[in-house]
Amino acid sequence: MPEDKFVPPAGAFTRSVPIRFSHCDAAGIVYFPHYFDMFNGLIEDWYKDELGYDYATLIMGGRVGFPFVHIECDFKIPSKMGEIIDLTLLVARVGRSSLSIAIVCHRDGLIRLRARMITAMMSLETRQPVPLPQDLRAAIEAYQARTGNYAVP
Amino acid sequence: MPEDKFVPPAGAFTRSVPIRFSHCDAAGIVYFPHYFDMFNGLIEDWYKDELGYDYATLIMGGRVGFPFVHIECDFKIPSKMGEIIDLTLLVARVGRSSLSIAIVCHRDGLIRLRARMITAMMSLETRQPVPLPQDLRAAIEAYQARTGNYAVP
Amino acid sequence: MPEDKFVPPAGAFTRSVPIRFSHCDAAGIVYFPHYFDMFNGLIEDWYKDELGYDYATLIMGGRVGFPFVHIECDFKIPSKMGEIIDLTLLVARVGRSSLSIAIVCHRDGLIRLRARMITAMMSLETRQPVPLPQDLRAAIEAYQARTGNYAVP
Amino acid sequence: MPEDKFVPPAGAFTRSVPIRFSHCDAAGIVYFPHYFDMFNGLIEDWYKDELGYDYATLIMGGRVGFPFVHIECDFKIPSKMGEIIDLTLLVARVGRSSLSIAIVCHRDGLIRLRARMITAMMSLETRQPVPLPQDLRAAIEAYQARTGNYAVP
Repeated sequence: MPEDKFVPPAGAFTRSVPIRFSHCDAAGIVYFPHYFDMFNGLIEDWYKDELGYDYATLIMGGRVGFPFVHIECDFKIPSKMGEIIDLTLLVARVGRSSLSIAIVCHRDGLIRLRARMITAMMSLETRQPVPLPQDLRAAIEAYQARTGNYAVP
Repeated sequence: MPEDKFVPPAGAFTRSVPIRFSHCDAAGIVYFPHYFDMFNGLIEDWYKDELGYDYATLIMGGRVGFPFVHIECDFKIPSKMGEIIDLTLLVARVGRSSLSIAIVCHRDGLIRLRARMITAMMSLETRQPVPLPQDLRAAIEAYQARTGNYAVP
Repeated sequence: MPEDKFVPPAGAFTRSVPIRFSHCDAAGIVYFPHYFDMFNGLIEDWYKDELGYDYATLIMGGRVGFPFVHIECDFKIPSKMGEIIDLTLLVARVGRSSLSIAIVCHRDGLIRLRARMITAMMSLETRQPVPLPQDLRAAIEAYQARTGNYAVP
Repeated sequence: MPEDKFVPPAGAFTRSVPIRFSHCDAAGIVYFPHYFDMFNGLIEDWYKDELGYDYATLIMGGRVGFPFVHIECDFKIPSKMGEIIDLTLLVARVGRSSLSIAIVCHRDGLIRLRARMITAMMSLETRQPVPLPQDLRAAIEAYQARTGNYAVP
């Protein structure tokens, strides 16, 4: 399959996002930092709707955060106001306290952009990594088993 | 009905918005400029889903804009990460080229915040007001007739 | 003086803001929620540079917030990418726990937009208003005395 | 020099950015998409103040854009409300129509985060890459010669 085509694996978590007036720059295409905001929203929804974890409760109650430690993103096709794009989240690797995911933004079977994002669970008090809770890890690994191990090219 | 209660009129255009991590400030409540971004999104959706006008086409094709000329907003109850709030759009007055709307943000029958926003259709070339197209005006007036004339207190 | 002209009173707190690519919409003018973000930044700078209060310390240390309870804004002249606009902060009224300010955005002596914003000091724990600390109130009143009492038309 | 230390080369373009209330999330640290917005602002300022090109004129007049095609970012130390961080722009490589830059965000000699960003000059009409204008290329290469060739580790 050529690099620019994409069909989400069965069971993959996908959400559609309408490209709004507020996302677009003077050229009428998405201003790129908004993509990262969309990605963060997708991750929130994945925690809640797919893994069964309320992100707000995790963050506000547990005094932990999920800061990103590394992000890579390839932008292939710009998106215009009025379009609807699909964002699919796949898991690349689960570490002790870190999680490496891929987010593929696509439409009509073509990749618009693709990101690899590594996040680490961290104590908000000590700013040190903390191990992923066992049940959260199990939920993520089950999702990964269902949808396959995705390696960003 | 006390000022802080709100039940949307039958047929009113309402959209739910989840309060995301990205909306919230260091106190865990919505940073207020994000509300105005939500309002703009609601208006886009209202044009498209209720009135049958594609906002992107109107803006990009017709070379007109809908800048706001006046905004008033009362903030009553803060919204926290993880909550879902409802935004209802009502029409207060339709002028020759201007449109006065109310947006009520509510949850569980209580007003969270309420805005009055006056917009004017304007040529992007001349920066002068242009009359609302007759069919768009008719669609707005029909919506207003269905949902009642809303006066922000 | 006609309503659309503006000369800041002597001693008024003014900051210049360059209109960036990221502020602008598909029409090349400022997307309006960004103005409210600029206003919040101006208020932060005013607390720090004019009143001698560190906003971050006030917020993070004192467990108080300054939520807005009412905002009104008149938009007169749009601002384009590459322009530099001036924002001036004036005090309209100091209450027990509330503060009413005006922010005038201007360039070349003409008002671009003008806002009236009422904020209240509030406990982040109880969500109830708390009286402004006496020394902060004194600093605000001294600023008001220096720059005059500004009534938004 | 250990990887986490950074001293800008002589003549490097650096701008300071205060971390504002609006940049911070519920944990009181910068919400990461705001960094990308800061980076875009830095690039604008670099074009204008260092290279002598007005970004707005380039974009609005010339009908070209500078979309990013690839971004990589390592986040090392979070930044808190009230801090001031320094952003330094260095050039890694100048291609025919592409430009690879590094942005190092640092404070007190330590790297907070570091990005590699590849942008390409593109026609807004055809969406195809266009060669960098000769004088712009010369200005960029002169900057690179002054400040050294920076390779992101």
